[in-house]
Amino acid sequence: MINQADDLSTTFAALADPTRRAILARLAKGEATVSELAKPFSISLQAVSKHLKVLERAGLIARGRDRQLRPSKIQGKALGAAAGWLEDYRSFWDESFDRLEEHLK
Amino acid sequence: MINQADDLSTTFAALADPTRRAILARLAKGEATVSELAKPFSISLQAVSKHLKVLERAGLIARGRDRQLRPSKIQGKALGAAAGWLEDYRSFWDESFDRLEEHLK
Repeated sequence: MINQADDLSTTFAALADPTRRAILARLAKGEATVSELAKPFSISLQAVSKHLKVLERAGLIARGRDRQLRPSKIQGKALGAAAGWLEDYRSFWDESFDRLEEHLK
Repeated sequence: MINQADDLSTTFAALADPTRRAILARLAKGEATVSELAKPFSISLQAVSKHLKVLERAGLIARGRDRQLRPSKIQGKALGAAAGWLEDYRSFWDESFDRLEEHLK
């Protein structure tokens, strides 16, 4: 129970950064190496590596064994756990969308 | 675009704490005052107030105007935005559940 809570905290903390979310969005299209990831973000390889370490520790990505390239790949389990936690609150956000929709009519 | 990214970061950061998630779980059952929230967690009123401020800043709760009681209430919009972001990755976590299911057979 406590472990699960900690895992969720680590996942949410890793997602609390726009660059890390952009990296995940890029990886959703397919595996990529550090240099492939660094290009579109115009940040240093070191900065990308640091973000990848945070994502890897949170179980959000896995990295290949190739010592040079180590392509990164999305891992679904932690994302699923975060989505599962939020799912319990669906009635609250569905309700707020309903109200928004009503307001727009 | 940048604002939306920041809002999402603030939401995920607020969710990256087991006590704050437990407070939201309690508020899912109905509005509660600071002292009502402090009881089951056996933490100080000050600590609860601090967590509530983080949740309020992230738009996850709103607080009543009553100067003394100020009951807290869940706000769905930020939770919905977080769930919406995760929804884009559904294929990854569905896939990992499929693999788990297959493994368990």
